[in-house]
Amino acid sequence: MRQEMLTTDFLERAVDSYGDVTGVVAHDGTEYTYAEVNDRVNRLAHALEERGVERGDRVALLAPNTHYFIETLYATNKLGAVFVPLNYRLAAGEYQYILEDCAAGTVVADDDYAEKIEAVRDTIPAETFVGYRADEIEGEWTDYEDLLEGQPTEEPDRPDISEDDDASINYTSGTTGDPKGVVRTHRTEHWHALVLNQHMEIRDDDTYLWTLPMFHCNGWGHTYAITGTGGTHVCQRTFDAEGVFERVREYDVSFMCGAPTVLNNLIQYHEERAAPEGQRGEGGETAGTLETTGDRDVRIATAGSAPATATIETVEDEFGWRIIHIYGLTETAPIITTSNSPRRLAERGRELKVKQGSQTLCTDVRVVDEDGAEVPRDGETIGEIVVRGNQVMDRYLNKPDATEKAFSERLEGYFHTGDLATIDEDGMVAIQDRKKDIIISGGENISSIEVEDVLYDHPDVGKAAVIPVPSEEWGETPKALVVPRSGAEPTEDEILEFVGEHLAGYKKPSSVDFVEDLPETATGKVQKYELREEYWGEAETRVGQQ
Amino acid sequence: MRQEMLTTDFLERAVDSYGDVTGVVAHDGTEYTYAEVNDRVNRLAHALEERGVERGDRVALLAPNTHYFIETLYATNKLGAVFVPLNYRLAAGEYQYILEDCAAGTVVADDDYAEKIEAVRDTIPAETFVGYRADEIEGEWTDYEDLLEGQPTEEPDRPDISEDDDASINYTSGTTGDPKGVVRTHRTEHWHALVLNQHMEIRDDDTYLWTLPMFHCNGWGHTYAITGTGGTHVCQRTFDAEGVFERVREYDVSFMCGAPTVLNNLIQYHEERAAPEGQRGEGGETAGTLETTGDRDVRIATAGSAPATATIETVEDEFGWRIIHIYGLTETAPIITTSNSPRRLAERGRELKVKQGSQTLCTDVRVVDEDGAEVPRDGETIGEIVVRGNQVMDRYLNKPDATEKAFSERLEGYFHTGDLATIDEDGMVAIQDRKKDIIISGGENISSIEVEDVLYDHPDVGKAAVIPVPSEEWGETPKALVVPRSGAEPTEDEILEFVGEHLAGYKKPSSVDFVEDLPETATGKVQKYELREEYWGEAETRVGQQ
Repeated sequence: MRQEMLTTDFLERAVDSYGDVTGVVAHDGTEYTYAEVNDRVNRLAHALEERGVERGDRVALLAPNTHYFIETLYATNKLGAVFVPLNYRLAAGEYQYILEDCAAGTVVADDDYAEKIEAVRDTIPAETFVGYRADEIEGEWTDYEDLLEGQPTEEPDRPDISEDDDASINYTSGTTGDPKGVVRTHRTEHWHALVLNQHMEIRDDDTYLWTLPMFHCNGWGHTYAITGTGGTHVCQRTFDAEGVFERVREYDVSFMCGAPTVLNNLIQYHEERAAPEGQRGEGGETAGTLETTGDRDVRIATAGSAPATATIETVEDEFGWRIIHIYGLTETAPIITTSNSPRRLAERGRELKVKQGSQTLCTDVRVVDEDGAEVPRDGETIGEIVVRGNQVMDRYLNKPDATEKAFSERLEGYFHTGDLATIDEDGMVAIQDRKKDIIISGGENISSIEVEDVLYDHPDVGKAAVIPVPSEEWGETPKALVVPRSGAEPTEDEILEFVGEHLAGYKKPSSVDFVEDLPETATGKVQKYELREEYWGEAETRVGQQ
Repeated sequence: MRQEMLTTDFLERAVDSYGDVTGVVAHDGTEYTYAEVNDRVNRLAHALEERGVERGDRVALLAPNTHYFIETLYATNKLGAVFVPLNYRLAAGEYQYILEDCAAGTVVADDDYAEKIEAVRDTIPAETFVGYRADEIEGEWTDYEDLLEGQPTEEPDRPDISEDDDASINYTSGTTGDPKGVVRTHRTEHWHALVLNQHMEIRDDDTYLWTLPMFHCNGWGHTYAITGTGGTHVCQRTFDAEGVFERVREYDVSFMCGAPTVLNNLIQYHEERAAPEGQRGEGGETAGTLETTGDRDVRIATAGSAPATATIETVEDEFGWRIIHIYGLTETAPIITTSNSPRRLAERGRELKVKQGSQTLCTDVRVVDEDGAEVPRDGETIGEIVVRGNQVMDRYLNKPDATEKAFSERLEGYFHTGDLATIDEDGMVAIQDRKKDIIISGGENISSIEVEDVLYDHPDVGKAAVIPVPSEEWGETPKALVVPRSGAEPTEDEILEFVGEHLAGYKKPSSVDFVEDLPETATGKVQKYELREEYWGEAETRVGQQ
């Protein structure tokens, strides 16, 4: 029997088998059973349908980690429409680009973030604007709760959805300036959740804390995996260390995710609070202790950059949490490798957790040279990570050239990650460098080319290059190298302010160096590799580690 | 990216990520790494290809639990051919029927069992006969190891296989007399393995002991799941309790499967050996102790009938093994429900393990009345279990009518299990009775109609009915009720001997009652329900429990 693999299957199972279980604890502590979540999803679906949302339409959402993210995702997919979650850290102009690109007819936004949509409202195709706490938003926004009010809780009419239909579009910073819409089908997302279940060891009694932004590839797939398994989502609106520890204790959290930046934030907070009396600042709790768990064992998945050995040691030995290191991209959903291999960890010990690890179930990961041949498994030879698997995206929206480039014709359609890595005799991959002009800072992708484009718009900038430099706090941060126009004498502050006006704050370079010239190839391409060498010096890899 | 979901993916991952790991420990203790397993698989595939095996062809295997079962499965599927594992307990006439039905061109058989194929050799379409230890087999059989000798270890040319292609055919006793070939596609088997991984909590450091016959739905899918995960298969040719405990200790086994009959055999052996000195028979080990584990926690999955509470208590408390109760049929691959729900077990306690449990991931299980409407979730109202899911079979081979009957048109294509059950407020299913004329004895399906057909062939039998009766050892066993022909006076022994000549031993009734007449409906159909009532009396259900 062939049954379509749909994202909505996960909510259906939760309602049917775990209807009485607390499915979602909202950011304000309100608890919804899965039956209640589904009632709200259905009411939202009816309301969206009334406003003309149909199969294939795009519904964009700008929200922190909270219950209505999960509700909007499932309501959209139940109608056969496509869910477009937005990074809440972007600037208004970036939303304008994305919402035009995906032609979203509907935008749902949180009151804290809606302003940046309102600023570009007249220039985007959307006609329906729904706001959470709309009273707080300037402009004409329909209140989210008002929208649900009076709608029936029955299932909406479900179109005949195929597993190959688009389910979601996640925008990512690509190698070109424009954000790229990563289109993922129902089958892609479905598979994604199954792979997570396996390698994250997810069970129905898991209580999952939302420290990771839900907009990142739909919460790295946990919006599906936790739901389908019957676990409980505990929402934290945005990340703060105190809130994490509080919730872990209060809800007996068993599982969460966070980039190494998040781990380091938690470590810093823990050090401050758990230091012996006299050595610690204000607000410390019982002298020398800070409870890091409730009544459950805790595991935490990390990705975005490799966690440093010291980070792993502190989290595992002092917090008592188990680290699961995974690797992937928005285009690969995101997990394609993990070092969470009990067998290999038993053989090789904890230092293995620094590696990105070996291919996940039914995923074909290879490290290849420029000719597409696999590099030796010696842990030394560097090649590019390429992958095939059902969790890999369908395409970039409206960008056939970029799509074609991403999938190798020579390599039977393998997707090129752009990450350069070694692979050892056990098939464990370790990233060494990045082929693409991407900087990954605190788990967020930044296109160096996008930042350079803005720099070139500044009247005093003659030439510019943006490269990653090591950062203890963020793994790596963008740094701008600028050759001023002849006669001009811009200051670092002027340059940074200018960038900040056009791009999300996290994309702003951490510093600017003014230089006389940039090394270029014969064809005039800036040799970024050479520039980076100066800043990475003795470091073992050319990518951030925290 | 859409990647076909194939059974061969599991071996490919094992070779790539766990090539150096012991993949299979053969019944004689020989150990093969996954790289070595794959070399042997490839050599077998080349040899089969030379003998004309092509995509879609059927390759039948008659073997106990051992390495060449796993090798034949993967070699067959690599060629795009269809794998047909045979129950090694059948009689020659039954093999004749099956091998004609599936038109297998190749038969691979173990020397202990080949004789029954040899007996019907001239009446079946097969032209290639491969024997393990062929020297021991009378007749012309090519030796398995000779066949591999000299073949290359390179991958064979792989045809372009679709996930919707047939992968295996497993014969099961159906409601009609003839065995039915359950056809499962690559996608079905693939999904099957993923569901097992989730609900059996399979990890790469699992060491799996083959107590369960591999021919049962391809080892309940563990031939795929354990391989793909990178675990180790430890083969035990056929079941014996002493061998189980020995291997558990020797190989630090972490996981195995067995019907409640198997559990009870283990309990009996354990009681005999672990009894205090003076109270035990010959062969006891250290007084009062029998080590039941190696250095690992052990879990054991059980299915086929519900384990009795006492069985669960003994296995969990005395052996220290954790029981996972699952439910399904050959047609459903087999797992569609499980009571291995950590959340529900925490709420409701261990008695939950007696229930078949709630639907597995992305599986739609319902309990419906005659009109197809779901029965109330009160744990009392009885209905039939129906199911939809990717792990449900494609069809019965050559039996379009039976296929049509099995899938409900009214119920959007749900598969009818024929099992009658209640469902409670948590969605936990508990089987109460059986709609189909199937008896499940020690985990083996027996068609009561098949046995009745043989009884009617006996010259002294006027009317006959075969019903299940409770059995402490087997859960239930078939019992024959016979109305002798006028003037005839057959004895029980005569009847049983006659049945034994035509059918597998396990299908032979445990006893015969001679009666004056059988209760019939107005249309002349025997009212088996009424007959069964006499024998099940006060029992809570009308199916075996051990």
